[in-house]
Amino acid sequence: MKPIQVGLLGIGTVGGGTFTVLSRNEAEITRRAGRPIRIVQVADKNLELARRVTGGTVALTDDAFAVVNDPEIDIVVELIGGYGIARELVLKAIENGKHVVTANKALLAVHGNEIFAAAQKKGVMIGFEAAVAGGIPIIKALREGLTANRIEWIAGIINGTTNFILSEMRDKGLPFDTVLKEAQRLGYAEADPTFDIEGIDAAHKLTIMAAIAFGIPMQFDKAYIEGISKLQAEDIKYAEQLGYRIKLLGITKRRQLDGKTAIELRVHPTLIPARRLLANVEGAMNAVLVQGDAVGATLYYGKGAGAEPTASAVIADLVDVTRMATADPENRVPHLAFQPDAVADLPILPMAEVESGYYLRMRVDDKPGVLADITRILADQGISIDALVQREPAEGEQQTDIILLTHVVREKQIDAAIAQIEALPVVSGKIVRLRLEALS
Amino acid sequence: MKPIQVGLLGIGTVGGGTFTVLSRNEAEITRRAGRPIRIVQVADKNLELARRVTGGTVALTDDAFAVVNDPEIDIVVELIGGYGIARELVLKAIENGKHVVTANKALLAVHGNEIFAAAQKKGVMIGFEAAVAGGIPIIKALREGLTANRIEWIAGIINGTTNFILSEMRDKGLPFDTVLKEAQRLGYAEADPTFDIEGIDAAHKLTIMAAIAFGIPMQFDKAYIEGISKLQAEDIKYAEQLGYRIKLLGITKRRQLDGKTAIELRVHPTLIPARRLLANVEGAMNAVLVQGDAVGATLYYGKGAGAEPTASAVIADLVDVTRMATADPENRVPHLAFQPDAVADLPILPMAEVESGYYLRMRVDDKPGVLADITRILADQGISIDALVQREPAEGEQQTDIILLTHVVREKQIDAAIAQIEALPVVSGKIVRLRLEALS
Repeated sequence: MKPIQVGLLGIGTVGGGTFTVLSRNEAEITRRAGRPIRIVQVADKNLELARRVTGGTVALTDDAFAVVNDPEIDIVVELIGGYGIARELVLKAIENGKHVVTANKALLAVHGNEIFAAAQKKGVMIGFEAAVAGGIPIIKALREGLTANRIEWIAGIINGTTNFILSEMRDKGLPFDTVLKEAQRLGYAEADPTFDIEGIDAAHKLTIMAAIAFGIPMQFDKAYIEGISKLQAEDIKYAEQLGYRIKLLGITKRRQLDGKTAIELRVHPTLIPARRLLANVEGAMNAVLVQGDAVGATLYYGKGAGAEPTASAVIADLVDVTRMATADPENRVPHLAFQPDAVADLPILPMAEVESGYYLRMRVDDKPGVLADITRILADQGISIDALVQREPAEGEQQTDIILLTHVVREKQIDAAIAQIEALPVVSGKIVRLRLEALS
Repeated sequence: MKPIQVGLLGIGTVGGGTFTVLSRNEAEITRRAGRPIRIVQVADKNLELARRVTGGTVALTDDAFAVVNDPEIDIVVELIGGYGIARELVLKAIENGKHVVTANKALLAVHGNEIFAAAQKKGVMIGFEAAVAGGIPIIKALREGLTANRIEWIAGIINGTTNFILSEMRDKGLPFDTVLKEAQRLGYAEADPTFDIEGIDAAHKLTIMAAIAFGIPMQFDKAYIEGISKLQAEDIKYAEQLGYRIKLLGITKRRQLDGKTAIELRVHPTLIPARRLLANVEGAMNAVLVQGDAVGATLYYGKGAGAEPTASAVIADLVDVTRMATADPENRVPHLAFQPDAVADLPILPMAEVESGYYLRMRVDDKPGVLADITRILADQGISIDALVQREPAEGEQQTDIILLTHVVREKQIDAAIAQIEALPVVSGKIVRLRLEALS
């Protein structure tokens, strides 16, 4: 059977990995797909690099539109990244009736609604397994493996850079800035690490997972995003003492509020019990925990980035398209798990309404009655305390730290309580507030 | 659109769960599948039970063949179990052009080659996600999510009963028999627990995973199967002291031997490093670790049994069939991941040729030179020792235990060494030998 003709846009890390794995495992992949899948054209601004990676075996161009417009190409693989030219290329490929495979989480989280609508209209497939959690087939699990379930929530470690940094901070007791520099030196963090460390990359991936878990449009602009750059080493240490680890989690949850369903969509550092599998996902690894009403909790773990792990997901999509391209487009696996006419317009919940446990650390005068004042304020707000540690002040020290964990409350309640506690004359400075999830 | 008409054979635990979840989540499932999926007929010997579960909303019969022969039925769900009547019903359903969804691992492991060949010929789909690891979508991951990879090995905790028993033995330091009784009382083990505790159920599931991971026929009769009923509490304790946990693993591995590829296929109690995620899978949970050449290690975790978790997998298959039934049968996801004409006839490796690390425990006289004799025998067989513990003999005791871990060797080498060591006059009785996998 004639090989599937693939046009590859961008031959950087993931593009190179895709080329390598497709070549190395050609026999195995053909046995699975039923016909060979070949990259026959590569577009990259850096023709020299493209020549080096491909060994001169395929047609090269620096004009990505030439690939997208080539009638010989069956599937376009977009690995350029970003929202600009990538969006134009993907839309053009769709317009030309080509299937598209992309690893571009930013593009899908921000322009996904437009792109999937165009693909649906044209009857072409969009594969995006590589956009979330690298080589872990989490999109497939959510879109196809868990279709029996009403998904209740998802909590994921979906950014390897930040998980590496947090693991190192905990292991070595080092501050954020030091570990970030180390991560940059080792290639785990980019020169400009903003997208990773501020949680933006994780929020892109979370937006995509929420869409296919709940059948809602992509709503990246509604996501709450808090990174790890302000996280302090002492909070990691205190959390540890209380039996918790701090992870940057992407959390999306179905909630009932005043009789209506709404969706929580949030990325932030989170305390989780140290005995949970998710707490033991170390280094640059990713893991996603999904709670379904029938299946209960399932967890998916693996490498969330890197050339070959991401290529694994890109190629899985190529095989999927190859296997299923003949299916009636109206009766195929829907791009976003739910049928396009069955998308629900559920609102994203404002953070004030989100419910969570909380970790609070505050600096207080070491004198009688302080604890009574603080616990009184919490009680008045209806907040129960789950654990409390008061550090023994050092010899001659006038102040000490109080660390406490609360049961689940609404965020506006804890914020109201924090404002009152900070106003107490015995409390110095701002209270550190982190969210806590039991994941049970 | 007309609902998909499902005929359900067997309304026991999983059948009941399937009925319940399909009803409860009908709206959500329809949004995903594009049309309603309805159980319209149920066959069960126990009509009273069927009436109670279904509430009288569907046609009931005690004749399963009536369902299989009914031209109105689109998909037959086989949840009867066993190799006898279930095989006849499945083959008849295929002959009648119906798609089949089954949770019957025994049937597929033993008669899968015949069943899948019949389905291929008829152009119908066979869904069997529920046959392995309950609600965890591991079949989908292997068949579709990891298609880019040359799978190197799989190691799985794929029997909840035995994992529950091993967790309890370790936690409470209790012997096997006591914990088995407790498991039976709690409903984690059957009245006749043989299939579970002797590893047969795990071997069925492993056989299926090996087939779709490597593209080989089902070869259950070649699997090596060793259960946990002879496992002693003290070995769990010694393993713990050395930093290991003992799990009943199903292991399948691609191996090169004399320039030819062969497959290891084995179920047995296995020491694994305590810090691995797999070692921390407790109670009745399942988890499967898959090593692919591109993606590296990925892990899939969840409930491996129970009414609704298994129903989750059954219904995912129903949705898959509903979504993809229109695809050209020659160009659809192949049942066993590889195209039927691309199946490889790789042999299963005899256990003598399997390579593994080993844990040995032996009872020896407490006198000088014993250790030298033992280590000399191991050295002569080319076996290196990774760790060794000699228990301090109690006051007045003449004998003591030596526990040692070896590096990876071929099983026939360790067995030869064991025979020589057992022949030493200073060694009493049989040596306990367990396998050890680093999983790295």
